[in-house]
Amino acid sequence: MSITGEMLIGRNAVRGTEKALHAFNPTTGADIAEPVFGSGTVDNVNAACELAGNAFDAYRGLPLTVRAEFLERIADGIAALGDALIQRAHEESGLPKARLEGERGRTTGQLKLFAQVVRAGQWLGATLDSPLPERKPLPRSDLRMQKIGLGPVAVFGASNFPLAFSVAGGDTAAALAAGCPVVVKAHRAHLGTSEMVGRVIQQVAQQMDLPEGVFSMIVGAGNSVGEALVAHPAIKAVGFTGSRAGGLSLMRVAAARPEPIPVYAEMSSINPVFLMPAALAARGETVARGFVDSLVLGAGQFCTNPGLAIAIDSDALKAFVATASDALTVKPAQTMLTSGIHAAYEEGENKLAGTKGVEAVARGAAPTGPTQARAALFVTDAKTFLATPALEDEVFGPVSTVVTCKDEAEWLAVAEHFAGQLTATLQMDADDLAAAQKLLPILERKAGRILVNGYPTGVEVSHAMVHGGPFPATSDSRVTSVGTTSIERFLRPVCYQDFPAGLVPQALADSNPLDLWRRRDGEITRS
Amino acid sequence: MSITGEMLIGRNAVRGTEKALHAFNPTTGADIAEPVFGSGTVDNVNAACELAGNAFDAYRGLPLTVRAEFLERIADGIAALGDALIQRAHEESGLPKARLEGERGRTTGQLKLFAQVVRAGQWLGATLDSPLPERKPLPRSDLRMQKIGLGPVAVFGASNFPLAFSVAGGDTAAALAAGCPVVVKAHRAHLGTSEMVGRVIQQVAQQMDLPEGVFSMIVGAGNSVGEALVAHPAIKAVGFTGSRAGGLSLMRVAAARPEPIPVYAEMSSINPVFLMPAALAARGETVARGFVDSLVLGAGQFCTNPGLAIAIDSDALKAFVATASDALTVKPAQTMLTSGIHAAYEEGENKLAGTKGVEAVARGAAPTGPTQARAALFVTDAKTFLATPALEDEVFGPVSTVVTCKDEAEWLAVAEHFAGQLTATLQMDADDLAAAQKLLPILERKAGRILVNGYPTGVEVSHAMVHGGPFPATSDSRVTSVGTTSIERFLRPVCYQDFPAGLVPQALADSNPLDLWRRRDGEITRS
Repeated sequence: MSITGEMLIGRNAVRGTEKALHAFNPTTGADIAEPVFGSGTVDNVNAACELAGNAFDAYRGLPLTVRAEFLERIADGIAALGDALIQRAHEESGLPKARLEGERGRTTGQLKLFAQVVRAGQWLGATLDSPLPERKPLPRSDLRMQKIGLGPVAVFGASNFPLAFSVAGGDTAAALAAGCPVVVKAHRAHLGTSEMVGRVIQQVAQQMDLPEGVFSMIVGAGNSVGEALVAHPAIKAVGFTGSRAGGLSLMRVAAARPEPIPVYAEMSSINPVFLMPAALAARGETVARGFVDSLVLGAGQFCTNPGLAIAIDSDALKAFVATASDALTVKPAQTMLTSGIHAAYEEGENKLAGTKGVEAVARGAAPTGPTQARAALFVTDAKTFLATPALEDEVFGPVSTVVTCKDEAEWLAVAEHFAGQLTATLQMDADDLAAAQKLLPILERKAGRILVNGYPTGVEVSHAMVHGGPFPATSDSRVTSVGTTSIERFLRPVCYQDFPAGLVPQALADSNPLDLWRRRDGEITRS
Repeated sequence: MSITGEMLIGRNAVRGTEKALHAFNPTTGADIAEPVFGSGTVDNVNAACELAGNAFDAYRGLPLTVRAEFLERIADGIAALGDALIQRAHEESGLPKARLEGERGRTTGQLKLFAQVVRAGQWLGATLDSPLPERKPLPRSDLRMQKIGLGPVAVFGASNFPLAFSVAGGDTAAALAAGCPVVVKAHRAHLGTSEMVGRVIQQVAQQMDLPEGVFSMIVGAGNSVGEALVAHPAIKAVGFTGSRAGGLSLMRVAAARPEPIPVYAEMSSINPVFLMPAALAARGETVARGFVDSLVLGAGQFCTNPGLAIAIDSDALKAFVATASDALTVKPAQTMLTSGIHAAYEEGENKLAGTKGVEAVARGAAPTGPTQARAALFVTDAKTFLATPALEDEVFGPVSTVVTCKDEAEWLAVAEHFAGQLTATLQMDADDLAAAQKLLPILERKAGRILVNGYPTGVEVSHAMVHGGPFPATSDSRVTSVGTTSIERFLRPVCYQDFPAGLVPQALADSNPLDLWRRRDGEITRS
């Protein structure tokens, strides 16, 4: 498949007439000469959104088996791109090929899992309340409820997952599974990768003769294209993964619309790790090495990167810091995704180093390329942490700060002090249980996922996963952006009262033709 | 129980020191002299919110059986208030006593239903994914998910349901069921009724020794108290039923917080009724009488009042209008809830009467009291309707407009033109099925509940009910504010990764001690 630099609007490839863009190779620090990507206009956005709006009823009206097949064929098409996709994604992101191969498997697996989810139909939430014609003083009607799609969804991918959180990533898979057309704004940091994947979706939609507009992909140079996309009346929800500034900006646009719409923005998190006393005493050095490995994984470019460790001061903690420092010192510098991300990392790391009361205890090996990040470990005390709001800001990259507390009261105060997080981790042993029980209610309020004796990087795509959490980790703590229940973001319930058999939706028919688990008069049943 | 005019903050009764307020009797048009209600300060709001924040972990940590008992004892306490409550609510609202007795039954029934919901525990959404220690390239962790409460909830009751959508109404019942403390702002239109019910909740909480702050009730003279409540950092969600202006104002306050929070505002809806040709021909006169009865019910003061009927022009439609006019003409004027609502009704009705292309075809009997509303029926054509946005504005009261269409295309255009609605209704017979199938996908996008051959007034409290819908019917179409699934508004998921048995929440324990239906590795099971 050749990359042309065009946008994909419905069934057409359209050359954008605004500013010309080049892809960038962060490993070499140079632009990729060919092709030139033409960025789009607000008119292009409008065309894509109108097609999406027109496609919605027809797409959501297709049999669920067709919707599922669509997802599976997209997965197969991505796999069929072979090494060319991996090569391009590597050039554009600087991420190692092995990592990208893994990410491709996650992406296709996610699409296939959502195909299963669509077929199983639990997301429909089918609920039936029987009529009570003899009830006094008033009879009860026949009431049935199912969920339907919200409408066309705007998707903004993430720089750090050019496959799994981008054009055919989790947001797109969940929205298409929910019966919602998708308009993607291609991420500036991997334009070629985006076009390759986008063309797969476009081709499959065309081969299956799906309604035109079920998928489009726009390229934009600045913010105006993205803002026009979120503001378009046909768009009914937004999926975004990226910076807090970017997420807040889209939230403002969505809230200012004549019809406000939900924005699912996954933004920033520092993912505290609590090093509990017994665990630290028993296996502090092992934990230190695991912590550093998690910290530098993927050049620290994960939403779940452990940016903070909290412990009560002790000899075991000093040994932890010493071991972590030794481990970090030999970690090679790694290429970051973009020159902008690299510059922001250097700025954030310098700011930490210059913060009063914060001490740099280790730095990784020096950079050997233009956008390489050098890992860093800092130590501060709880008093400084509690008094310095900037220490809670996410620094995107391989850096972490150890916060030392003088006692359990101070460490509970640090936990209570946090804003919302994607994750919180306990490194604990049996003797830490009582302390963990005190921490847990606080952490439940603060984080979407709580781990014991693991590291927060690595987000499983499964039924019980929550990749979400209170603000500012995300814009909406009520949902997850990873896992099968992420489909719920794009659904709303509709109640059907006293519908005749000829009009009642299939999921709610008396005979249960879709063989769903349904709630009937309050009881879960498959009959 | 005597009414003192005090606010209820935690375990205390506190006299507000701001502006003195009197309750108002809309039947007589005069203030109720005793007692004087003291309105509160922002400091009072802060005190209530801080108590609520401090109570959250302790309250949600109680056994579900205790939470359920709390709801049941509130219901019993309200019932035990007897006629005194009905008398007071009648004086303050002008609503007939029989209607208020019915509403009391709905309120206590709702609380008891939520007690059952709490015990059954399906709202926990318990989900377990088994570990896969042998999986390659990486093992899978043990992942478990449940839902917990969002945190303290601010509740703003509705004027038109002084019991069922007020202090102990649906929002409060759902929030308490979800494990969330509640701070109510008492509605200005029924201050005494609010205090009576609030004192029941306060007393039950105290008798059961629940954490102080699980319930508080504030009185406010202007908007500042309500805005301070929504802005307080301890508050994590807002329930509101009322005007669009009021809802939009709270949405703005919530979005401007450092930590934005969800607002569930149920605002305005004109609830279109489609009079389909075969139904109109076969039983147009019966439908006309039923339509007028629904229209004038409770002086038209329902969110689901049918404010619009749409039909293709025909002799049968002319007969419908004639019968509806005859039926409406003899309907007595009825006392409205407040002088403000009455004035707004008169203004809205006058505006309709003065709109070019809109004809008044019938008016009900003349008023005999100071705040009585005279019912009215208007007719317009689709062309005028489509060109006059003001015809889509809700006029709260007993008024409706019949929109005549020249053909099916025009009637589909009218359906497509609507903004979001709580309900849409089809009056249809078997021969209307094909036309109904064309309308249905449009109506699914526009409304939360679609009825066949009924009238939209009357909202069942059950499992399949959806009292919600796209903006501006509500601020959030993803949820319902009536029925058992309204609990979902106040919940968020938390994932527990590799938790030891001593720390895992009860709902997720291996042995399923709460006997829940759970999702285990994707399958619904109770084992």
